[in-house]
Amino acid sequence: MRILLVGAGGVGDAFAKIIARRTFFEHVIVCDYDLARAERTIVAIGLKHGHAVAARFSAEQIDAGDPDGVASTARKHGATHVMNAVEPKFVPTVFAGALAAGCDYLDMAVSLSEPHPTDPYRQTGVLLGDDQFAQAADWETAGRLALVGMGVEPGLSDVFARYASDHLFRQIEELGTRDGANLVVRDDAGNEIFAPSFSIWTTIEECLNPPLIFEKDRGWFTTEPFSEPEMFDFPEGIGRVECVNVEHEEVVLMPRWLDAKRVTFKYGLGEEFIGVLKTLHLLGLDRVDPVRVRSAAGPVLVAPRDVVAACLPDPATIGPRMTGKTCAGVWVTGTGLDDRPREVYLYHVTDNEWTMREYGTQCVVWQTALNPVIALELLAAGTWGGIGVLGPEAFDAKAFLDLMSAPESEGGYGQPWGMEDRLAS
Amino acid sequence: MRILLVGAGGVGDAFAKIIARRTFFEHVIVCDYDLARAERTIVAIGLKHGHAVAARFSAEQIDAGDPDGVASTARKHGATHVMNAVEPKFVPTVFAGALAAGCDYLDMAVSLSEPHPTDPYRQTGVLLGDDQFAQAADWETAGRLALVGMGVEPGLSDVFARYASDHLFRQIEELGTRDGANLVVRDDAGNEIFAPSFSIWTTIEECLNPPLIFEKDRGWFTTEPFSEPEMFDFPEGIGRVECVNVEHEEVVLMPRWLDAKRVTFKYGLGEEFIGVLKTLHLLGLDRVDPVRVRSAAGPVLVAPRDVVAACLPDPATIGPRMTGKTCAGVWVTGTGLDDRPREVYLYHVTDNEWTMREYGTQCVVWQTALNPVIALELLAAGTWGGIGVLGPEAFDAKAFLDLMSAPESEGGYGQPWGMEDRLAS
Repeated sequence: MRILLVGAGGVGDAFAKIIARRTFFEHVIVCDYDLARAERTIVAIGLKHGHAVAARFSAEQIDAGDPDGVASTARKHGATHVMNAVEPKFVPTVFAGALAAGCDYLDMAVSLSEPHPTDPYRQTGVLLGDDQFAQAADWETAGRLALVGMGVEPGLSDVFARYASDHLFRQIEELGTRDGANLVVRDDAGNEIFAPSFSIWTTIEECLNPPLIFEKDRGWFTTEPFSEPEMFDFPEGIGRVECVNVEHEEVVLMPRWLDAKRVTFKYGLGEEFIGVLKTLHLLGLDRVDPVRVRSAAGPVLVAPRDVVAACLPDPATIGPRMTGKTCAGVWVTGTGLDDRPREVYLYHVTDNEWTMREYGTQCVVWQTALNPVIALELLAAGTWGGIGVLGPEAFDAKAFLDLMSAPESEGGYGQPWGMEDRLAS
Repeated sequence: MRILLVGAGGVGDAFAKIIARRTFFEHVIVCDYDLARAERTIVAIGLKHGHAVAARFSAEQIDAGDPDGVASTARKHGATHVMNAVEPKFVPTVFAGALAAGCDYLDMAVSLSEPHPTDPYRQTGVLLGDDQFAQAADWETAGRLALVGMGVEPGLSDVFARYASDHLFRQIEELGTRDGANLVVRDDAGNEIFAPSFSIWTTIEECLNPPLIFEKDRGWFTTEPFSEPEMFDFPEGIGRVECVNVEHEEVVLMPRWLDAKRVTFKYGLGEEFIGVLKTLHLLGLDRVDPVRVRSAAGPVLVAPRDVVAACLPDPATIGPRMTGKTCAGVWVTGTGLDDRPREVYLYHVTDNEWTMREYGTQCVVWQTALNPVIALELLAAGTWGGIGVLGPEAFDAKAFLDLMSAPESEGGYGQPWGMEDRLAS
């Protein structure tokens, strides 16, 4: 297996550092628009694991927006797999480049949606992933696999949903992905500061898009932003966090393979963050069209959202100043195998101090990057396999979770997952 | 009386339109940095009242930041009074120019404060008005009067406090200025929009400065922003509005002339507005130092607060789209003349639809501009008089309130004020 890793940003860098500890692959070509960034990742791997490991990586410049460039780079290096780790807006071009080069393909976010032109908060327009699924026949004809949405959410969440469907439930009422954290960032004086652990630009986009819900007898539909707020109790000391509906891949992926009456995704933004996003929207500070602003050099045109981003700490720099845990999981309700009501939460928790110490990577990107490495290992071993455009729930979940949770000394990833039964007995 | 009006912005324009209906003065020289703006005010007066009235006004260009220019303009026109209606940052220069020209002086906001250098949220630094009161001896020596803080708040609020002190209370516990409104701005489709009726730039400054409180046995001290939130019930249908401490002139002026155990100012910002200001501060969007932001023309430097202002509707344009009332008043507690506990709220309410119809001016600036006109009429009549640097509470409040409330047909201003006794009997 020769992997063309497209993107050496936060998640791509973490992917390389995680896979560096495994032996199932032959070579990873770390590609970035900024070659120095790709080289920096390999230098870090060399410092940690020595020359022999670093020699299994090479750096390459790439333009993720150019499908021909992606294809020719893949061919040049004899890549068998393209691992897409750049922003979702580049999904179409990297996806096309991989197919053109005859590679299998993985990503961690699917092609973007477009809101309904006249009724955006009730009806769907173009769904997340529509562009990719429309090309499924081409991938099948070519005999190649595109495994889409294989990060943590989507990704591990979809694996959990498949596991619940196969091993825990006879009938599923709701598959509800629930994501929450208790991460805190402090300034040099030790005071808590407002510093999102992910791009505020992307977060605004994600949270202000019409949230997506699936119901079996209604299909996909949308709501107003921040709908159906609920306090969800997260495990391992994270505690109760206010969650609201947002648009997310799980809601399009799970219903394609799994049988559930309702599929939702709620993001544990917390009251403060929800309040911030609402205020930014109220004041028009989420806008991406430029406004005219006075400056010492005369009037200038800037996008308010860019100004908001410029005022906050760069998420790439906050890892060392952050403490706490992040939790990804799926809350499942329905009828258990014993025909009695059942409610479970399947989850995986990552601690930022641990990822910083072990990988020099903050926990949110580390947890995202872990899952495609595991998936590639299962594909390399032939445990997972398939052709066409498939989501994580199209594959055997138990094999994935077993490899993830097995101790490193036994060839696993040493990452246990948890399950809470939530119905009082 | 020949009045040099410095500033033909919102309040200056309203001042000219209000005084145009009176006869006590000889001439008003309407001055602005932008001469066209001064001329526009006089044209509006001519259209409403005819040539004879407009002939009592003339326009002049002025730089409020240049004391010599202010003085020479005042001398050139034989001004007897300088009426300062520009931003508070120009108080020192207009104040100095008036004294140099041998004029009496009025303003509606006093010289700015500076926070305590090391302990800003507990101790005071330079107080509001300190710079002006430090020059009191010069005004006394010159035999000239500087009547400072003579708008609505400060201004009418201080008149109410003096009235309560003279006519309603034997002993005063608290003089609490309370300002609230139920103003709503709608877009063309009739939907409520977020559009402050005053400069967001100034509001941020006012609300994020350390709030000021006076206590007789402690002196002046400060608190964290938005301290001591309370729901205050405003009259005439405005209803309950959340009010918080802010720094305001009343707290420095009232204790200089009136005896009270505690003096406060609370602004009825309302929960939404308080939330917005807190969020802007949390994200650093209230900052006035420039940040580097990407733009189509490359990186530019802009002050985040300027971007916030650029995203909101210009307060000068929202009058026609605004409905509701604004209320200024003083809540007084203590012992009444009958030696029993007493609690009253003295207030004046202005309706935006009425000010728009009668004056083409939104209610907040109209209510501000009304009071210095009344004060000037009392000074012209010799009812009020004095030398040195004095606040509104240094003068007879009953004469002011009688002139304000008397019907226009009887030579008054037709602006009744209200009083609510708030202790259940």
